[in-house]
Amino acid sequence: MGSCTTTGGRSPAVGRPRASGAIMANNRQILVKELPEGPLEERHFELREAPIPTPDAGEVLTRTIYLSLDPANRAWMRGATYRAPVEAGDVMAGFTVAQVIDSRDPGFRPGELVECESGWQEHAVHPARALRRLERRGPLSHHLSALGITGLTAYFGLLEIGRPRAGETVVVSAAAGATGSVAGQISRIRGCRTVGLAGSDDKCAWLTEELGFDSAINYKTEKARPALKEHCPGGIDIYFDNTGGEILEAALFRMNLHGRVVCCGAISQYDTATPAPGPRGVPGLIVTKRLRVEGFLVSDFFRHRAEATDQLARWIADGQLVVREEILEGLEAAPRGLIGLLHGENFGKRMVRVAPEP
Amino acid sequence: MGSCTTTGGRSPAVGRPRASGAIMANNRQILVKELPEGPLEERHFELREAPIPTPDAGEVLTRTIYLSLDPANRAWMRGATYRAPVEAGDVMAGFTVAQVIDSRDPGFRPGELVECESGWQEHAVHPARALRRLERRGPLSHHLSALGITGLTAYFGLLEIGRPRAGETVVVSAAAGATGSVAGQISRIRGCRTVGLAGSDDKCAWLTEELGFDSAINYKTEKARPALKEHCPGGIDIYFDNTGGEILEAALFRMNLHGRVVCCGAISQYDTATPAPGPRGVPGLIVTKRLRVEGFLVSDFFRHRAEATDQLARWIADGQLVVREEILEGLEAAPRGLIGLLHGENFGKRMVRVAPEP
Repeated sequence: MGSCTTTGGRSPAVGRPRASGAIMANNRQILVKELPEGPLEERHFELREAPIPTPDAGEVLTRTIYLSLDPANRAWMRGATYRAPVEAGDVMAGFTVAQVIDSRDPGFRPGELVECESGWQEHAVHPARALRRLERRGPLSHHLSALGITGLTAYFGLLEIGRPRAGETVVVSAAAGATGSVAGQISRIRGCRTVGLAGSDDKCAWLTEELGFDSAINYKTEKARPALKEHCPGGIDIYFDNTGGEILEAALFRMNLHGRVVCCGAISQYDTATPAPGPRGVPGLIVTKRLRVEGFLVSDFFRHRAEATDQLARWIADGQLVVREEILEGLEAAPRGLIGLLHGENFGKRMVRVAPEP
Repeated sequence: MGSCTTTGGRSPAVGRPRASGAIMANNRQILVKELPEGPLEERHFELREAPIPTPDAGEVLTRTIYLSLDPANRAWMRGATYRAPVEAGDVMAGFTVAQVIDSRDPGFRPGELVECESGWQEHAVHPARALRRLERRGPLSHHLSALGITGLTAYFGLLEIGRPRAGETVVVSAAAGATGSVAGQISRIRGCRTVGLAGSDDKCAWLTEELGFDSAINYKTEKARPALKEHCPGGIDIYFDNTGGEILEAALFRMNLHGRVVCCGAISQYDTATPAPGPRGVPGLIVTKRLRVEGFLVSDFFRHRAEATDQLARWIADGQLVVREEILEGLEAAPRGLIGLLHGENFGKRMVRVAPEP
């Protein structure tokens, strides 16, 4: 067994699992050894074994089943965002689907499945309020993909921020990614002309042949600005932005009057020491085209979560929404899996199976 | 009399006055001789005399009384915006308050006062649909300042796009300008903590001492980012942006969660051959802070124009809204007046008296 490693002396915040406590057995964890200055590498992480913590009153011990890998994980290493930053020495943060192992809170019983932010470790203790009981629908992994944060982000971002009307043109960047692939399919379901940008010909073929996108652009072989002109002859009504940077700039120049830019993420800016300058055309094009450029966080819309999950599950059940997942095996796969995600390796949702499904 | 100068052979668009036609007498006009590459100079304009045109059926001849000078005039010289671009050889474009001299449309009678876009000339012929009858309230000049496009832009931008709540912090750039000075006063009337940025200590003193701003920043002597931190210790809820560029960037870093950026103009980008790159933090800060960054055009809200004008007139009448105007004398003053405006000379609304009030 390795040395006992804690997440530091800070007072526990909601969602920050406690990894210290009384000793039971081994808890394998991946820590951030050093924050990256430039691109993330495996050397920035470190595998450790720590004691499995025991819950205090009001707390719950969970075992991680699936660990979500998300581009936002890298953004959390850059400083405070909508959550506290990940710092050197911390267990790497991440969304998880987990099972309750031990509970000292009346609201949770051993064996129950929950959603939580256990981070990159096999076990974690949470305050009960930081857990959400999971109502299982179909494969458990869907609760990290189309029925989880990823799918809900696509759903609320497109429908509540973008507000599509049938017949409009919707462009999605990182369209073969976990969120983009769902956003584009919802756009298609809602009767919009749907154009995706992705980083390989294989991904583009998947978008148009399997997911029903009307058109796809390989942004690594085509320049975004002329390509958007060619693929969107009537302009863009909604741009669902997962990337920021050059593609955002190109889209702004192609937006129609009263267009909407759904600011979901900025993948192009996360894994670099030198973020690009802001897009030209800000604010000029926003003024002259009367654009609405709006950010959101999925949790802003959680009051509508149940109906959104129901709708997504119905679309999956009737074959309208294709879910693609890449499930890596074992906690040790997480660093390489996240690095690859940041390089655009993935088709659909990437996650790690940390323990077998119960 | 000079040579007959026309606006070129293009088909007349709504709002583009016709300056040719049968000969009556002199019509002094200022034309764009050459489009500026960099900063606008007097040499880019040319004074000419042309015949006063006569209206055809459905048209109206007007005499210009007041000509509005607006930073947007310069933006129109950079290419298509929300209107056709101003091109070399055109009569320079501009909003005007005018009097009907001759009418061949049953909707208008000689002597009536109208709002129109006659541009920089003493007389113009308009299609009747391009005119709007003016209901005079107090000084005629107010219909180009607080009761005109300028005041309505401030009103709708702040209230409809910004949606202020009492107690919020509102920051206004170009706050001593025509639109900014009204936006900031409405913010104060609505119970918001109001901070202005302006380009001189005299302007800053005017904002806080005469207009009731809570605080003012001279952006020429203070760096915007630390100054906004000092003057807005609780962050910014609404940023009313007239400038774009560095001040927009600094404001983005200081915005509160769910803040709103009202994209009204981009003065810093109009009078230059080398517009600044976009602000850093786009889209990253928009995502993490869930900002809404939204452009608008005053005409989008004209269905509510009457109630807005009523409200503005009441605020002026009861002393809550201070109106400051700089009225230059004679059409020839327009080029120098616009150039000075672009250099930030003006306090409040600048306009030219082209003919005496009737």
